[in-house]
Amino acid sequence: METNLYPIQRDIENLARFTATPGQGVTRFSFTPEDRGAREYIKKAMAEAGLSVREDAAGTVIGRRQGKVEGPVVMLGSHFDSVRHGGAFDGTAGVVVAIEIARVLEEHGVSTVYPVEIIAMVEEEGGRFGAGLFGSRAMAGLVTYGQMELRDDSGISLAEAMREFGFNPSEIGTARRKPEELKAFFELHIEQGPILEKEGVSLGLVEAIVGMRNYQVAITGRPDHAGTTPMDMRADALVAASEVVQQVRKIALDVGGGAVGTVGKMEVLPGAANIVPGEVRFTVDLRSHMESALDELHSRLHSAVEQACAREGVTYTLEQVSDAKPAHLSVVLREVLEKEARARGISTMTMISRAGHDTQIMATLTDAALIFVPSKDGRSHCPEEWTDYADLKQGADVLLGAVLAVAEAER
Amino acid sequence: METNLYPIQRDIENLARFTATPGQGVTRFSFTPEDRGAREYIKKAMAEAGLSVREDAAGTVIGRRQGKVEGPVVMLGSHFDSVRHGGAFDGTAGVVVAIEIARVLEEHGVSTVYPVEIIAMVEEEGGRFGAGLFGSRAMAGLVTYGQMELRDDSGISLAEAMREFGFNPSEIGTARRKPEELKAFFELHIEQGPILEKEGVSLGLVEAIVGMRNYQVAITGRPDHAGTTPMDMRADALVAASEVVQQVRKIALDVGGGAVGTVGKMEVLPGAANIVPGEVRFTVDLRSHMESALDELHSRLHSAVEQACAREGVTYTLEQVSDAKPAHLSVVLREVLEKEARARGISTMTMISRAGHDTQIMATLTDAALIFVPSKDGRSHCPEEWTDYADLKQGADVLLGAVLAVAEAER
Repeated sequence: METNLYPIQRDIENLARFTATPGQGVTRFSFTPEDRGAREYIKKAMAEAGLSVREDAAGTVIGRRQGKVEGPVVMLGSHFDSVRHGGAFDGTAGVVVAIEIARVLEEHGVSTVYPVEIIAMVEEEGGRFGAGLFGSRAMAGLVTYGQMELRDDSGISLAEAMREFGFNPSEIGTARRKPEELKAFFELHIEQGPILEKEGVSLGLVEAIVGMRNYQVAITGRPDHAGTTPMDMRADALVAASEVVQQVRKIALDVGGGAVGTVGKMEVLPGAANIVPGEVRFTVDLRSHMESALDELHSRLHSAVEQACAREGVTYTLEQVSDAKPAHLSVVLREVLEKEARARGISTMTMISRAGHDTQIMATLTDAALIFVPSKDGRSHCPEEWTDYADLKQGADVLLGAVLAVAEAER
Repeated sequence: METNLYPIQRDIENLARFTATPGQGVTRFSFTPEDRGAREYIKKAMAEAGLSVREDAAGTVIGRRQGKVEGPVVMLGSHFDSVRHGGAFDGTAGVVVAIEIARVLEEHGVSTVYPVEIIAMVEEEGGRFGAGLFGSRAMAGLVTYGQMELRDDSGISLAEAMREFGFNPSEIGTARRKPEELKAFFELHIEQGPILEKEGVSLGLVEAIVGMRNYQVAITGRPDHAGTTPMDMRADALVAASEVVQQVRKIALDVGGGAVGTVGKMEVLPGAANIVPGEVRFTVDLRSHMESALDELHSRLHSAVEQACAREGVTYTLEQVSDAKPAHLSVVLREVLEKEARARGISTMTMISRAGHDTQIMATLTDAALIFVPSKDGRSHCPEEWTDYADLKQGADVLLGAVLAVAEAER
């Protein structure tokens, strides 16, 4: 039994048309007309695959295929929202592949002991409201009031957008699934990095999803005249900030184990060629799959900022704005996937996911697995994002085999 | 004979009211209603000091006091435009002091062999149109067509603004003065730096005005995902740029002799916390009073950018956008000023001006001298800019003495 390349390609191409920025990549924010179009397409495809379709209170589309027993459920899918000017594969690929698997099960009249649910989640990227993983958080009962009150660029809150779209935000609690309702969760996703392509390996089997800590740093010096202020009488906020940028890179390399550190956003004020920078504000993003490494990155960041600022005679504030723990995925499911890949002659490697995914939330509920397919040139979150359809089909076939095994198909 | 503190204080306070940002410092751009108000005040004050007043084609206000001969002329003054949210002293102090000197000459019925001209120049700061020293450049015949076509934030060109204000930009050539028409040029200006205050000296006698070279650097890396891109596979434009920031400081300190180097403006793109910076654009401002030092700063900047970019695997463009030569001021006039200060028991020190001034342009035409008065805390270009009126009067008295000497007063 195998999946088919053509319907996967067709669904991805069709879904890419539901974008707010035609010709400039996929921009599909949650609870917008583009969401509506993609959602109706997905619901129709699910229904045609013989699934009974519903939407939970968070807006996640769920297509269910009965098993011999009522539960627990084998769940598979991903999200169908996108970033601004993103690509056609991020999230959508996992939804389309899951629907194709349902279609294949239906076409072959497969019956399973456990029910199978195909899911298409919303607001994973946080593109519209700023904090993502919304569909999976709702399933795990982790949506906070604060997240419901986040507002988009037009000042519309997530709760308001949901209500206007036809959902009832006060019923969000009903989206929650109990751990005993779930047998396993599978997500197929594009790698969004260059490793599989570079190594020439077809599939990545994710062991862990990195934890992430985000910081906001503000360094305050003195905005002096760039001509009249001698070098040794300056308090240059940018000299201190640029030392921190250097140190963030060094710290990540020193800690190793694939830890990464990035200063991605920086504002230099007042921002005139002839004025010594008086204030610099910037972000620091630190990631590792090991909590101990995150602790070390954290403490070394604090030392680096303190030392750089002391040396330059400037002051600072350093605020941690988020803390996501590393998620460790199911070893059992990974072995199932590995076996299925081996049986099909498809190469795999274990990997760490260095981006966040709904799987990290679902792993708090049940055994969870994440499969990566290669990203051309490692690019994602851009219109050029690309995965070969043949690679997607390989991932789909391995996932099909794993679903048959875990849902206990009666072949 | 001496100047009076009160009229100096009164004129500075009155002129500070011609600002587009009341309560937030002086914002007096050229050819605006604030320029008009200050200009009329200055013309009236000049007329009341017995000067015959005219405006040249660049908009500079000139008040002339006859001498026994037609020329050459002893000129003194400064500019009366300001930066945005600047102070009440930068430029204006030199205009007010020059008018007070004319007033004292008149009150004492002094006659001089050579004519004296009090001048109040425009668009020295470049606050409105981006390139300054306009009044002095016009006198030296150095205004380019490009400068006339510079546009303000509303898209109005300098030429258009002049025409609307009542000047004829096509007659700009008539503002030109020939070297043989001038005997000397004196400018009194606030120091805009902390040295006089720190050294406890009343007046700075400027030996040279620094040369300045400005550069625009653009570093292009690759905007990768901050989670999924390993440290060793990045091309981080900000890591390279921050290395250049560090090097600019180091190079200035290495070259020494008071050389300064500043990265004052920086943009980091795309500017998201979770995206590796793909492009960074920044300015570099290098200054020294020695052309040889500027050459060394220039060549070491090029090496630093090249090395930082090669190490990070990013590309760059490095464009020099301006080149102002160091100006060496008159030793003879400095000795005159020094003698006048000594006679009055006023302390002086020789200094380098590390900011640009109209004097550096006037030095291409005639013997030129620049006198600095102390700036409180070295601050300038801000509402807090301050010089004690007693210090201003000391500068005015020394300048009065020098004018009497150079214009050959018949006492």
